[in-house]
Amino acid sequence: MDKENHLTAETVDIDLTAKELIIIDQTRLPGETRLIRLKTAQEIWEAIYLLKVRGAPAIGIAAAFGIYILAARIEAEDFEGFYQQFKEKKEYLNSSRPTAVNLSWALNRMEQVCLTNREKSRRELLKALEQEALTIKEEDTQVCKRIGEYGLSLVKPGDGILTHCNAGQLAASKYGTATAPIYLGQERGYGFRVFADETRPLLQGARLTAYELHSAGVDVTLICDNMSAMVMKNGWINAVFVGCDRVAANGDTANKIGTSVVAAVARQYGVPFYVCAPTSTIDMSLESGIQIPIEERKAEEVTEMWYKERMAPEGVKVFNPAFDVTDNDLITAVVTEYGVARAPYREAFEEIFRRKKLNS
Amino acid sequence: MDKENHLTAETVDIDLTAKELIIIDQTRLPGETRLIRLKTAQEIWEAIYLLKVRGAPAIGIAAAFGIYILAARIEAEDFEGFYQQFKEKKEYLNSSRPTAVNLSWALNRMEQVCLTNREKSRRELLKALEQEALTIKEEDTQVCKRIGEYGLSLVKPGDGILTHCNAGQLAASKYGTATAPIYLGQERGYGFRVFADETRPLLQGARLTAYELHSAGVDVTLICDNMSAMVMKNGWINAVFVGCDRVAANGDTANKIGTSVVAAVARQYGVPFYVCAPTSTIDMSLESGIQIPIEERKAEEVTEMWYKERMAPEGVKVFNPAFDVTDNDLITAVVTEYGVARAPYREAFEEIFRRKKLNS
Repeated sequence: MDKENHLTAETVDIDLTAKELIIIDQTRLPGETRLIRLKTAQEIWEAIYLLKVRGAPAIGIAAAFGIYILAARIEAEDFEGFYQQFKEKKEYLNSSRPTAVNLSWALNRMEQVCLTNREKSRRELLKALEQEALTIKEEDTQVCKRIGEYGLSLVKPGDGILTHCNAGQLAASKYGTATAPIYLGQERGYGFRVFADETRPLLQGARLTAYELHSAGVDVTLICDNMSAMVMKNGWINAVFVGCDRVAANGDTANKIGTSVVAAVARQYGVPFYVCAPTSTIDMSLESGIQIPIEERKAEEVTEMWYKERMAPEGVKVFNPAFDVTDNDLITAVVTEYGVARAPYREAFEEIFRRKKLNS
Repeated sequence: MDKENHLTAETVDIDLTAKELIIIDQTRLPGETRLIRLKTAQEIWEAIYLLKVRGAPAIGIAAAFGIYILAARIEAEDFEGFYQQFKEKKEYLNSSRPTAVNLSWALNRMEQVCLTNREKSRRELLKALEQEALTIKEEDTQVCKRIGEYGLSLVKPGDGILTHCNAGQLAASKYGTATAPIYLGQERGYGFRVFADETRPLLQGARLTAYELHSAGVDVTLICDNMSAMVMKNGWINAVFVGCDRVAANGDTANKIGTSVVAAVARQYGVPFYVCAPTSTIDMSLESGIQIPIEERKAEEVTEMWYKERMAPEGVKVFNPAFDVTDNDLITAVVTEYGVARAPYREAFEEIFRRKKLNS
């Protein structure tokens, strides 16, 4: 059990020799930065389900590393036997959380590498899987940085920026998505004033975003989710940047519960609302947000999880959706690694994917 | 230290023999229903400041009982000496919280009774003060009930109702303000489905509203503040009812932080947004909400108050306003004990106060 500052530790990493996934256990932040090592399918599934690793890009990376580690331990006579076990483990990991598309996106990329290398030796096949997982992580850093550049073009020095949940370094490999413009701006002396929603019930804004931005020296102020209208009405916010777990073809965006509240408030106060979306989170197979599955989680997350004692009466009903869908008409723009998409989104996304294809 | 179910205990009461203020210590709900007795100015001030008693109407009643108790203990040779000490104690109590106008409203009523009875014996003067304090409480029950009737006329059986913070029985003498239509509807078999915002940072919605409605057998579901958009988008909410701490002449309404977030979201999803306001909370001396003083409270309420451990990094800045102002254009109507006021509010309130005068 290592302990070190998160700024020197990677959110998601792999020990290629021991074949172990290494993550910061984010449920222990900000009190303790504990690195944990995972090697069984159940350990990896639980780490994702229990949000020890969370954030769409980080889940994708963890799934890629995870399926590689599991694949390396498969004992099978031939490719068919290997592939059958690979598929089973893939489906199992894929069942850990339903909303973020990066989970299935990364697992599908890994499966594709399997199939492409079916004629190769097991050693070569595993090498290809290892390389693909490392590529997924490396790409993520580049994607986040490019999102940061495009996002930075939408704001100016001294601006006030509000963000919800954590789409930061702790949700990706580096830079984060929604925080990428903030970190790049910080490097360039932009002097942003950032407001971080605490993000109930699991407090990712307080525990993770405020933590990582504060550690990086960013001017960050923590607020409760219900204070967004006040800071906007006070004129303190020039732009909202949020991440996303899945974007439908029409621009409807699933992200952490409360994102659509921020969007409605931003609309009311004329503040532009930007979704930072790696193209890996854009799911063109879905017409609209209605089709995005929304995970509901345990009532106890709301009533007792972090508290000294239970904070609601015994037996009271609780509704605890982990995500919500923000309607496309509340979204000013979707910032991807291939440019800024604006409504109508289907056409804009098609253009984004054309640029991506040209660059690949 | 008595313990009993809140439904049999009064939110604010007085022991006329012992000259003690009796309140439910609301910071201990829902885990424990503890009645506490207060008799010194400092005890009463702290009980209001620390939110052991809270909610605009209940603060008014506690202040009226409180100043009476303190007045009964004043030793002075003549009225001038008595009045000087009365004024000092009044100003001290009035400094406990700035936003709710009911505090100064109740204290001013008590002072007026002082001045009207200056020629009377001390015994008669104290009797008049006692009577005025009891009247303030008794009036509140009637006011809440009438607000409930007017509120009930705005909804129909089976409706979904969202409320924020606690403007319930625990915030008033009985019925509450925002909950009055709910309780009256419950008595009449309306079968409302109520959604209670937990209301960060002090969780009055989870600890108090969910508690009292659940105890009363109302169908109540607890949600986090940031889930309001999702329940409205799902079509589950037909009306929002909230209380208020002070309403300006133009209808701008100060209420618990987050109220204006709910209002903006309700606007987005076409849900009517009703403010339940006893006329005692309407401050015609203020042109607009800009003039309403907004209390800011300690950062620790957000970062550590209820938690097993600190939930945000040490040293991070926190903005913690206790209230916000909802713009009048987001308010569908203000429900008072003399009818339902709609924009333009100044004229509507003047008519409300005319009706009140005719009835007094």
